[in-house]
Amino acid sequence: MNKDIPVISLQRLPVYLNYLKSLPEDKIYVSSGLIAEALGMGEVLVRKDLAYTSAVGRPRVGYDKGELISALEDYLCCNGRRYAVIAGIGALGRAVLGYGGFCNYGIEVAAAFDNDPAKTGVSVAGKPVYDISEAERVVKGLGAELAVLCVPAAYAQSVADLFIGCGIKGILNFAPVLINAPEGVVVRHIDVAANLAILSSML
Amino acid sequence: MNKDIPVISLQRLPVYLNYLKSLPEDKIYVSSGLIAEALGMGEVLVRKDLAYTSAVGRPRVGYDKGELISALEDYLCCNGRRYAVIAGIGALGRAVLGYGGFCNYGIEVAAAFDNDPAKTGVSVAGKPVYDISEAERVVKGLGAELAVLCVPAAYAQSVADLFIGCGIKGILNFAPVLINAPEGVVVRHIDVAANLAILSSML
Repeated sequence: MNKDIPVISLQRLPVYLNYLKSLPEDKIYVSSGLIAEALGMGEVLVRKDLAYTSAVGRPRVGYDKGELISALEDYLCCNGRRYAVIAGIGALGRAVLGYGGFCNYGIEVAAAFDNDPAKTGVSVAGKPVYDISEAERVVKGLGAELAVLCVPAAYAQSVADLFIGCGIKGILNFAPVLINAPEGVVVRHIDVAANLAILSSML
Repeated sequence: MNKDIPVISLQRLPVYLNYLKSLPEDKIYVSSGLIAEALGMGEVLVRKDLAYTSAVGRPRVGYDKGELISALEDYLCCNGRRYAVIAGIGALGRAVLGYGGFCNYGIEVAAAFDNDPAKTGVSVAGKPVYDISEAERVVKGLGAELAVLCVPAAYAQSVADLFIGCGIKGILNFAPVLINAPEGVVVRHIDVAANLAILSSML
């Protein structure tokens, strides 16, 4: 679904949603101009992005804030329930597992995997950590569709392949390496060092 | 510097760099077509992005791989030396502190800060962790220009303000909240939950 929106616009929808949720409760209407100013963006761009959702703004009044939040939440599947799993329970995997913000987007991180026996068979942040050999049983049992890779670069592709074989359709990859995936599987890459380098070259 | 490149192009430069570095040593020339195919991108876009660097491709031969890597490294300031600091030594802060990939981009994560006395006064991954009250002395002493915020949302703006007052010019924010910064300070936001939500809505 939602295939018609450019990824660059899609990426901004959570930013709008967070901003709208941060507004005082008694703020009933919000204009695209207000949103644009608060987020340091152009007003035309804001209107264009929001037009991908079902929200309808009214001239000289703006959007009904509650309606706009609902429209964004619908678009981002916040009211659904999708399961995610994590591979790699080093410091980063633990951070992701302990992070509480996923439920706002209708996502439950339900299990984690590692190949180190010292890290498996326990719970971290209340979530079970399994040996990677149990991936097929657990991922299929959950019907999990999302995975977060927090493994070293050398393992990223093989873990991705394993997960894809178990039905994972979306992969968030923190390993500093590109992942190949077949059509129908979406991969997003977060390279922390590259992000800092991008900042550095903007100074 | 490098103000003329669109951020969207700049974001792809580390991807090209990583790909080029992953090629076999005896691969001397690379064409934009090869890069485009390997990364699943359009060839025109690759050529346009690379044109922002000093690299010059030759018709029917492509780019000299070594020259192209150097041009990308120059553009991304990989051969410089910039210092970064981290705020918040929870699981995520530890993961960032322990990550070795920054040096590839000429960045040294040199110190970390927390406000929890149980976490400060020690070294993590060989880097000193100071009380946040020492930020001014340490950040100015290092001449650090980059900061990574791994603090809870409620602290992010005040820590950002503190760092900016100490001379920080680029902030990578992992806290799930928008940071306001004055002109001349660049902020990039990595919202892990939002990234997973974006993936989820693309399925």
